[in-house]
Amino acid sequence: MMDYYDVSGCYILRPWSFKIWAEIKKFFTAEIEELGVEECYFPMFVSAKALNLEKDHVEGFAPEVAWVTKAGQSDLAEPIAVRPTSETIMYPAYAKWIQSHRDLPLRLNQWCNVVRWEFKNPQPFLRTREFLWQEGHTAFATKEESDKEVREILELYRRVYEEVLAVPVVPGKKSENEKFAGGLYTTTVEGFIPTTGRAIQGATSHSLGQNFAKMFEITVEDPEKRGQKSFVWQNSWGLTTRTIGVMVMVHGDDKGLVLPPRCANIQVVVVPVGITAKTTPEEEAKIYAYVEDIVKICKPAGVRAKADLRDTYTPGYKFNHWEMRGVPIRLEVGPKDIAKNEVRCVIRHNGVASQLPRDNLKKSLPQLLNQIQNDMFTKAKAERDSHLIRMERFEDGFVETLDKKNMILAPWCERVACEKEVKDRSAKIALAGEAADEKAPSMGAKTLCIPFTQPTENPIKPGVTKCFACEHKAVSYTMWGRSY
Amino acid sequence: MMDYYDVSGCYILRPWSFKIWAEIKKFFTAEIEELGVEECYFPMFVSAKALNLEKDHVEGFAPEVAWVTKAGQSDLAEPIAVRPTSETIMYPAYAKWIQSHRDLPLRLNQWCNVVRWEFKNPQPFLRTREFLWQEGHTAFATKEESDKEVREILELYRRVYEEVLAVPVVPGKKSENEKFAGGLYTTTVEGFIPTTGRAIQGATSHSLGQNFAKMFEITVEDPEKRGQKSFVWQNSWGLTTRTIGVMVMVHGDDKGLVLPPRCANIQVVVVPVGITAKTTPEEEAKIYAYVEDIVKICKPAGVRAKADLRDTYTPGYKFNHWEMRGVPIRLEVGPKDIAKNEVRCVIRHNGVASQLPRDNLKKSLPQLLNQIQNDMFTKAKAERDSHLIRMERFEDGFVETLDKKNMILAPWCERVACEKEVKDRSAKIALAGEAADEKAPSMGAKTLCIPFTQPTENPIKPGVTKCFACEHKAVSYTMWGRSY
Repeated sequence: MMDYYDVSGCYILRPWSFKIWAEIKKFFTAEIEELGVEECYFPMFVSAKALNLEKDHVEGFAPEVAWVTKAGQSDLAEPIAVRPTSETIMYPAYAKWIQSHRDLPLRLNQWCNVVRWEFKNPQPFLRTREFLWQEGHTAFATKEESDKEVREILELYRRVYEEVLAVPVVPGKKSENEKFAGGLYTTTVEGFIPTTGRAIQGATSHSLGQNFAKMFEITVEDPEKRGQKSFVWQNSWGLTTRTIGVMVMVHGDDKGLVLPPRCANIQVVVVPVGITAKTTPEEEAKIYAYVEDIVKICKPAGVRAKADLRDTYTPGYKFNHWEMRGVPIRLEVGPKDIAKNEVRCVIRHNGVASQLPRDNLKKSLPQLLNQIQNDMFTKAKAERDSHLIRMERFEDGFVETLDKKNMILAPWCERVACEKEVKDRSAKIALAGEAADEKAPSMGAKTLCIPFTQPTENPIKPGVTKCFACEHKAVSYTMWGRSY
Repeated sequence: MMDYYDVSGCYILRPWSFKIWAEIKKFFTAEIEELGVEECYFPMFVSAKALNLEKDHVEGFAPEVAWVTKAGQSDLAEPIAVRPTSETIMYPAYAKWIQSHRDLPLRLNQWCNVVRWEFKNPQPFLRTREFLWQEGHTAFATKEESDKEVREILELYRRVYEEVLAVPVVPGKKSENEKFAGGLYTTTVEGFIPTTGRAIQGATSHSLGQNFAKMFEITVEDPEKRGQKSFVWQNSWGLTTRTIGVMVMVHGDDKGLVLPPRCANIQVVVVPVGITAKTTPEEEAKIYAYVEDIVKICKPAGVRAKADLRDTYTPGYKFNHWEMRGVPIRLEVGPKDIAKNEVRCVIRHNGVASQLPRDNLKKSLPQLLNQIQNDMFTKAKAERDSHLIRMERFEDGFVETLDKKNMILAPWCERVACEKEVKDRSAKIALAGEAADEKAPSMGAKTLCIPFTQPTENPIKPGVTKCFACEHKAVSYTMWGRSY
């Protein structure tokens, strides 16, 4: 999947993981092209002047910005930042390109690398100093159009996770504390890692409102008030290689990786078995030919298959090799299978084995891959649901429930001060008696999102339902948890 | 196409030019996948230690390397380079991954950005401090396999230029002076820009020999001599966004850009005409409907078409708008055309106009686009050929011929010292009487390549034919010119 590298926080994406990224890219690119978004590429470098133009925004990123100060042996006159995100790179150009309503909407996307020099412990895929992403940056004449796009893109992010990666996510809105620096509001899809009981932000689609438009002076003439300028409404949205890490952690098991068929580089591996010292060269040739024939059946059926014909390894070694790499289906072919014109089929994610008639593989394999994709999603969703605990009062065991690797859905007042207090309180309780300061930030609970789909059973009664943590009235059911 | 940016040497690739890059990417990715090359991604940063490991190589790049020395407010313990190319980033991993013959061949490719902080005048697409490229890095057990791949990849580069971009190129080998720093030999496809009379390097496919393998200790056990290690044979090859610039310069004319159909974002633009003050709303609606209908015909025929229905611009304005942007075919639809069930068709690259029956567009448009693609290539090739002058002696007007915007094909001894001398001599003659020092580097002629296809008429007679510039014997006909 990946390999370590001698610059801390940077990792190598090997073909096995890069293929997953390529599948995500293929799916997402086709969808946004349908929406009318165009592809482009902006420079990676940004001058300090442009970077500093939006105050809240730069405060959010400044501590993590990498600076180029030298070229060859010469010091640069001005240090130049490597993009942590491209708002401040793109919007000066937007201000130039957008003059009238006819220039709107402007909807651009780029796939590129970005750098955030975090000092927290790096972790492959999840927290890396350089990562790959797509970033969409769009401008509209009205808030309505921009709001609509924020949700359309979020829906695509949900589909990337749920349809391509078989990972269930909760779409919702971020709290004020957790929203994008300098934006109006942030929407997110939130995932869950069962083994650690922690939530993870999957991808975000931001409404920037008119804030950046004001800083960068992106205006159009108001068609109703001649000579008057109005600011455009902007969005930005991004999906990173973190997706790969989330998928790995959600589906992986003791034997290693488990790949959902849709993003697997190899969906079916075919392994010859039952070759012993007594096997004649003719019998052996027959088995090898049968194996290769099955791979040939797969290609036109749209199945990515590979024969493992390495003669220096035992079948057991090969089984292990491909299990560890998460290939969804293993087909075994031995003399007995050939006699019955069958193959033995073993499914990676649940270990179920069966015999499949060879002549029907063209149909049965695509169906089975589809089935596996759905089963993996259903299983992951059931697991996630069983760890999303509804709770009405903090005192009902908020921290203990988190400690048991759960997320919590609770009625909340949506106040910034309340979120901060919950964070502090929960960290203190979790760490009572321990040497606390070091762990405190990660042990405090924070809001994950305010789900767009609110509970239908006993929903919030406006003005009646109380916040789970303070004396104010609740506004919505909000998801809380510990997070990556 | 592009826009300027406030960091010198960096430019914005707008959708109109990025689409060309996307088409190149699509073509090349499919072809190398067929060859068995896999996609991956390595970090952008490289430590000084790794960068300095191959001496000739680092000398070639060191003056142009951008260094990150700060993150946030902190100085980094060690400055870190931004990749100018990834040999020194990838090969430590190759040394780890490659242990036995079973790990070979290893063939990886990545699409990414690289930075070369040149201090010469930057030029959009052609000389930019950040650019996009693909870089392939492969390792083989034998020199034969590696030699074979060098040429296979070069052939793909030729096809990118000639088939996708309709730009003729000459495939050949670089001289010792011009080869890749640290490599064994370099092959190249060389283009020609008629307006300036200068040659331009299109893309390069390098044999690295065993040089990097020795520095990075990339070895396999020799199957014939137990316990003995042998070094692998490596190649690297790259194609950059410079391709776009070459295409623009080769095909552009006084009216602006001329796009070959295969890489045009919009291949056909349909413009309503003949709408006057006397046109009734019904007649107008009929014209608009006819225009939209033609766009609908195009899609299933695989033709990328767009209707320009903007009612605030005149047809003349629109003609100009799309001509400047290089759209290969303009269709005009007015009342007279509709009466005859025809459209008026104007071809961008040669201005030829004709009437096309509407009912046959599904067939005639794809054919016509194909024809345009071929015609543009043929025209560019004839132009290039007329500027490639064969010459037997330097004294026959070597510099005067270059001054007339030509390249020269001459019998050459292939000696390093001879190339240097020709460079100096030609610069001195070209600049005689002028304030010379500044211009000297660009006015000196250099070798472009030793073409793989040598002249068949009066070819080199080994041991007989003399070098055009010195008293040694000639080894090959070599292309000389001034270059970007």
